[in-house]
Amino acid sequence: MEVWWKQVEQIVDHALAEDLGWGDITTGTLIPPELQGRAFILSKASGVVAGTEVARMVFHRVDPSLQVELLLSDGSKVKPRDIIARIEGRIASILTSERVALNFLQRLSGIASETHLYVEAIQTLTARIMDTRKTTPGLRRLEKYAVRVGGGYNHRQNLGDGVLIKDNHLAALRSQGKSLGEVIAEAKQKAPHTLKVEVEAQTPEEALEAANAGADIVMLDNMPIEEMRRAVEMIKGKALIEASGGVTLDKVRAIAETGVDFISIGAITHSAPALDLSLEIEPEGSTS
Amino acid sequence: MEVWWKQVEQIVDHALAEDLGWGDITTGTLIPPELQGRAFILSKASGVVAGTEVARMVFHRVDPSLQVELLLSDGSKVKPRDIIARIEGRIASILTSERVALNFLQRLSGIASETHLYVEAIQTLTARIMDTRKTTPGLRRLEKYAVRVGGGYNHRQNLGDGVLIKDNHLAALRSQGKSLGEVIAEAKQKAPHTLKVEVEAQTPEEALEAANAGADIVMLDNMPIEEMRRAVEMIKGKALIEASGGVTLDKVRAIAETGVDFISIGAITHSAPALDLSLEIEPEGSTS
Amino acid sequence: MEVWWKQVEQIVDHALAEDLGWGDITTGTLIPPELQGRAFILSKASGVVAGTEVARMVFHRVDPSLQVELLLSDGSKVKPRDIIARIEGRIASILTSERVALNFLQRLSGIASETHLYVEAIQTLTARIMDTRKTTPGLRRLEKYAVRVGGGYNHRQNLGDGVLIKDNHLAALRSQGKSLGEVIAEAKQKAPHTLKVEVEAQTPEEALEAANAGADIVMLDNMPIEEMRRAVEMIKGKALIEASGGVTLDKVRAIAETGVDFISIGAITHSAPALDLSLEIEPEGSTS
Amino acid sequence: MEVWWKQVEQIVDHALAEDLGWGDITTGTLIPPELQGRAFILSKASGVVAGTEVARMVFHRVDPSLQVELLLSDGSKVKPRDIIARIEGRIASILTSERVALNFLQRLSGIASETHLYVEAIQTLTARIMDTRKTTPGLRRLEKYAVRVGGGYNHRQNLGDGVLIKDNHLAALRSQGKSLGEVIAEAKQKAPHTLKVEVEAQTPEEALEAANAGADIVMLDNMPIEEMRRAVEMIKGKALIEASGGVTLDKVRAIAETGVDFISIGAITHSAPALDLSLEIEPEGSTS
Amino acid sequence: MEVWWKQVEQIVDHALAEDLGWGDITTGTLIPPELQGRAFILSKASGVVAGTEVARMVFHRVDPSLQVELLLSDGSKVKPRDIIARIEGRIASILTSERVALNFLQRLSGIASETHLYVEAIQTLTARIMDTRKTTPGLRRLEKYAVRVGGGYNHRQNLGDGVLIKDNHLAALRSQGKSLGEVIAEAKQKAPHTLKVEVEAQTPEEALEAANAGADIVMLDNMPIEEMRRAVEMIKGKALIEASGGVTLDKVRAIAETGVDFISIGAITHSAPALDLSLEIEPEGSTS
Amino acid sequence: MEVWWKQVEQIVDHALAEDLGWGDITTGTLIPPELQGRAFILSKASGVVAGTEVARMVFHRVDPSLQVELLLSDGSKVKPRDIIARIEGRIASILTSERVALNFLQRLSGIASETHLYVEAIQTLTARIMDTRKTTPGLRRLEKYAVRVGGGYNHRQNLGDGVLIKDNHLAALRSQGKSLGEVIAEAKQKAPHTLKVEVEAQTPEEALEAANAGADIVMLDNMPIEEMRRAVEMIKGKALIEASGGVTLDKVRAIAETGVDFISIGAITHSAPALDLSLEIEPEGSTS
Repeated sequence: MEVWWKQVEQIVDHALAEDLGWGDITTGTLIPPELQGRAFILSKASGVVAGTEVARMVFHRVDPSLQVELLLSDGSKVKPRDIIARIEGRIASILTSERVALNFLQRLSGIASETHLYVEAIQTLTARIMDTRKTTPGLRRLEKYAVRVGGGYNHRQNLGDGVLIKDNHLAALRSQGKSLGEVIAEAKQKAPHTLKVEVEAQTPEEALEAANAGADIVMLDNMPIEEMRRAVEMIKGKALIEASGGVTLDKVRAIAETGVDFISIGAITHSAPALDLSLEIEPEGSTS
Repeated sequence: MEVWWKQVEQIVDHALAEDLGWGDITTGTLIPPELQGRAFILSKASGVVAGTEVARMVFHRVDPSLQVELLLSDGSKVKPRDIIARIEGRIASILTSERVALNFLQRLSGIASETHLYVEAIQTLTARIMDTRKTTPGLRRLEKYAVRVGGGYNHRQNLGDGVLIKDNHLAALRSQGKSLGEVIAEAKQKAPHTLKVEVEAQTPEEALEAANAGADIVMLDNMPIEEMRRAVEMIKGKALIEASGGVTLDKVRAIAETGVDFISIGAITHSAPALDLSLEIEPEGSTS
Repeated sequence: MEVWWKQVEQIVDHALAEDLGWGDITTGTLIPPELQGRAFILSKASGVVAGTEVARMVFHRVDPSLQVELLLSDGSKVKPRDIIARIEGRIASILTSERVALNFLQRLSGIASETHLYVEAIQTLTARIMDTRKTTPGLRRLEKYAVRVGGGYNHRQNLGDGVLIKDNHLAALRSQGKSLGEVIAEAKQKAPHTLKVEVEAQTPEEALEAANAGADIVMLDNMPIEEMRRAVEMIKGKALIEASGGVTLDKVRAIAETGVDFISIGAITHSAPALDLSLEIEPEGSTS
Repeated sequence: MEVWWKQVEQIVDHALAEDLGWGDITTGTLIPPELQGRAFILSKASGVVAGTEVARMVFHRVDPSLQVELLLSDGSKVKPRDIIARIEGRIASILTSERVALNFLQRLSGIASETHLYVEAIQTLTARIMDTRKTTPGLRRLEKYAVRVGGGYNHRQNLGDGVLIKDNHLAALRSQGKSLGEVIAEAKQKAPHTLKVEVEAQTPEEALEAANAGADIVMLDNMPIEEMRRAVEMIKGKALIEASGGVTLDKVRAIAETGVDFISIGAITHSAPALDLSLEIEPEGSTS
Repeated sequence: MEVWWKQVEQIVDHALAEDLGWGDITTGTLIPPELQGRAFILSKASGVVAGTEVARMVFHRVDPSLQVELLLSDGSKVKPRDIIARIEGRIASILTSERVALNFLQRLSGIASETHLYVEAIQTLTARIMDTRKTTPGLRRLEKYAVRVGGGYNHRQNLGDGVLIKDNHLAALRSQGKSLGEVIAEAKQKAPHTLKVEVEAQTPEEALEAANAGADIVMLDNMPIEEMRRAVEMIKGKALIEASGGVTLDKVRAIAETGVDFISIGAITHSAPALDLSLEIEPEGSTS
Repeated sequence: MEVWWKQVEQIVDHALAEDLGWGDITTGTLIPPELQGRAFILSKASGVVAGTEVARMVFHRVDPSLQVELLLSDGSKVKPRDIIARIEGRIASILTSERVALNFLQRLSGIASETHLYVEAIQTLTARIMDTRKTTPGLRRLEKYAVRVGGGYNHRQNLGDGVLIKDNHLAALRSQGKSLGEVIAEAKQKAPHTLKVEVEAQTPEEALEAANAGADIVMLDNMPIEEMRRAVEMIKGKALIEASGGVTLDKVRAIAETGVDFISIGAITHSAPALDLSLEIEPEGSTS
């Protein structure tokens, strides 16, 4: 799944403890433990599936004897009534696992689907759709994985794997009398040599100043398309260029057409609606 | 905050470890540790604020010496440029905390805001807006808190604090030859006496059968308004009535007008867009 | 085992860390690791067995290669010299696991046995023996499971899955000028709709007032048998009735005969003596 | 408290999570958060108090602003109606903490009280009352502390801080053709030099053989008083002597009079009944 | 300390649990808890101090009332008998904390001291001394901090914050028929855009090939000084250059003189001898 | 491995989280997941191997499908180019595990090798080489295991499994007016009866006083060889004798020849250089 499974296991166990740490009273009271059957996870909407291995892990953590067959793998496009997975075994275990498995699958598929809309919108252009650090607390690794499943790319994973000098950093440093050039020089001198230095710019001129000062990447923050285009003209080839801020599905193609290298979008993680999915039980002996 | 603070602390620490477990390279490299200043958290959209105490905790876990003043409390309505909080102290600590604090505040405020839209839509009617167990893995307590802040009510917290016999349970039990009445009787006999028994019904007739069999609450699942109205007529007074499934902002008032007691909506937690917020730094000496 | 196995695993691992986190010096020093053999867990007293699956888990967490055969399942009645389980494999592993396995099994069987004495004492009557939240810190799920094994029922699992307005709540609320009726009305209005409302009453009159005000359950707290009988007469049919406080084996049948629905007893968890058990080793080659 | 506070904190947090991890619905629904008052912890029986610092920690973990005054310290003897502690502050916080605080205090005081009965029974004699490893999983450090509070002494804390060759070890080793002397010699040769070697003996003759072979301590296992006396005569001065197995309050003085150095008793931890305590609220403005 | 304090706290608590989880029997038995006094941490060798804040944290986690005054800060050079810190308060607490505090301080100071020897050896030259991922499991953040204290720089923190294509990667990829150029192109295309791409080269020719293919950094692996010099001539200006493998104090200056940008040395973390330190107690009333 | 495997598993998981918690970007970007192959762990120096089972666990925690064959077991002597283990399976998994597996194996083998040098230096003499509590925070159990692998013995594991009255304890107690004899008597009276009492002595006379006062073990602290010999003459037979402080490979045989029973050496854990090891990949299809 490209995310270290031990960490996914911890997240899954935590989610299960949250939901069934005090037992599943309804199932425990009513469903005979030995009752066998099948269940299907179906899509009720169109989108891109992500998190099938996480869902499988949920079922297995609840009951290692459940058979989980993934009929679609992560990245598959679905439409309503498509079957994503088939689970076979104790009905009680399937019912107890259902909600947590779907919660993961719906959220991750929601993110992959939202990402994919942006990716499709800029098809044939070279810009990349990227995520941000605006992820759900506790789920960052999984959400960034879902972005990749949807065809996007990952920006920094955390505050330790990239240098990104934002507006607030610059405001603080300018109050200390430092120029943009001095700030960038200091970053390049002192930060780990394996990391590139990225700087946020508010205007094309600032972008140029940053590029000239040695910034590896310049982020054009919330610039109108026109200014963005001008900034690209000024610094293309001198630095990589990232567009960020207020990107919507309507505007993303126009932004990509300016020639920026990357377009980062917080909304693909923080505001992606869940993909609507359901689980349907088929007890032994029934026909469907 | 009505959520046990030790658990919030664990969630906060986990989120911080996720973001700054390997240090904040940019801030550590550039910002002098002794530099003092102020920052403001501002709304960039309209909605209902939730999670201010969580945001405060984030700042304090990073640096206990930061002064965090909450200018608006949870439940306050905001519009663009409203100031939610003021933070004072080491600029480096504020910058390091910013993203995690905002991630919590944006998500919880998003849920409170979405909930509030539904609550307002049914104003003057007696039905209650309720959440579901369709929450983000790991954040259930906080998300259910945000629903309450938005004016909603909480359904079951987990599988152990309520009996809810859903369609999948009934399908499994019917395959065993049990009638709805037998299932309900068994649930009432065997489940803990402090918990009510709720049953999902697909038709008004099934709803009546459930109510007659002793269900404390009947959930009308995805019924058209007309059927819902008929079901209410048939069972009002015999059992509490919950409408569930496919509830949208467009339809919620019509649903409430049928006379149901509760309307549960998964989307207020699983698909609420984040409330757009930002943090702005004001270094010492600068004027604004 | 009706308790989520991942949580039992954590409790078991914690107990093992407590006992053998620094190794088993005696066994490690003396017993050849390859020595094979058998061991039996025997009862040295009469009672009801509970926790056999937990004991099995202890052996398996220490050494997954041990064969553990449960000759008696939870709920079985035992008398001295009855064999509960047979363990086969490395003698060193069995010796290292022995104490922790027995500590769980003795305590849980003690609770099941104590519970069963009360259950037997009220045989033929309809009242149920119930536990309380007076459990050993850290072992609540397992202890409540043992109560069920002994034939008892569970009251609230925790402060979140039931509304129980106790004397101390009422004292605080009366100091605020609220009447019993107002308190109950508020609880019914504001608490989650899936939970019943239970109220503690000191006198039959208070019990009646509570039932009339809409309490779903009334707890008769430490009432003399006579008053209890009177209270039952007054409210039977209006609310479920629970007797609580100072219940002993001597008095429990008389209490049940008053017609109460539930009898809750802290002593079955907080003061149940351990069931005396032992483990006997039979090294390979020996005959017994 | 002689137990490392960080570990007690973890045990306390775990117990609190168990009870109020999903919130305190009753208190949260009914008690105004700002309501102030006092509460008292009273004894309802006679015994020895232990765990007052743990109880205080419970209140402080729930609400650091509570004032907890310990009127009696650990080791104090109490009789019915004695006041052990006074808590002042938010009534809601006191109510939420009550059960967990009492659960710790009742159990630890129960152990201290039971231990003290044995200690008093052998007063004027030189033998020491000792505990065993038959403690509640997860609470060993606290339970062994309570034994010390009651006037007893601690045997091994775990399998790593003493060499105790028990009957089952000897059975296994004899099957390998090793004599008692060989086993003891091997233990003394190979075990850490800071630890003494203790051996379990079934008869006075075996006790003598062990002492002669160099055992530092000999445990007389379940011997009749007469044999115990004979064993003491035979080995006194050659090794320290511990009596173990089936020790009751009736027999303990006779055992001590044989001249053994230590008497170890599993029942003081695994079967001590809880000391009956209660908490009484006194809301602000009320008089009592 | 430039390492997130919550994580240091966890490491410290873990180390304390390791040493005093079962209490400090010696101190608990002998030292009166109320005895006050002072202690000093002294150097017994020459080197560079690192970890003073960690040592302070150890004392505070054991007893928050201890006063710890750091007389020397991290990075200070010490010689025998220099006083690093003064601790004042309960003697028992100081004695219980001593070993763990010194274990951290000795190890981190050992790393800082070893690093500093290399830094001094190349003084006046522009190369930087760097660490590797060859750190002690569990202590990486602290050990990399100690390297910085000693004047060194950090290479990758973990496998997620840099692209480093090593010999083993190349061996695997060549077996797939990929050329060095293809591998580098793929890495630049697919890896996160904030990370540079570093490639290990065995010969100057390979180094040139890597640089020409677009590697941001080329690592000269275990090359003789002569080859290293040749490699630097060939690629200086095209890529940053790192020397690695078999670097000793004897050879480091010659390596630096070749003109490489970075010299990475596993031994400064995996084989640095501890700096010899001691703690001396001065009980109240004594004069020294 | 004589260390409880669940605890090793936690240490291993922690180390893996440290290194690959954010994924292995290089391997994930470049190596096809299905590529199979072999790898060998080779020694590049001479020494004693320790930690092979830990290394195996690392590979299995990353990828349970890897086949790990240990060609040498712990305690084996190695010279350059000796093969310690062979790993077979997914190349990507092997590359991801490599560093953490080697970090454990190099450190533990380093300790075993260093210990073994001392053990060999005193061959034919009866003294034992012992470790101290000067271990790496978090790794004590493993490091003490490595000492045993190298032929050494373990001193106290922690502060709870032995009484060791050190100079600092004595200084504190003398300030209270207590004599050495009184201190030892108190320790023997109050400490757990399963533990021996060891006392640190600065001079032969003090050693004699301690032995006469009943110390089970006397530690000669940093005494010159001559004094050590005198101390041994004076107390041999009265108490066990441990030499400690400033022991080097040069001096250890002379120390052992004085007749002391134990020689404890902090440097074998705190300053042992890592044993140089490497892992070499052999992709499928290649020949070597």
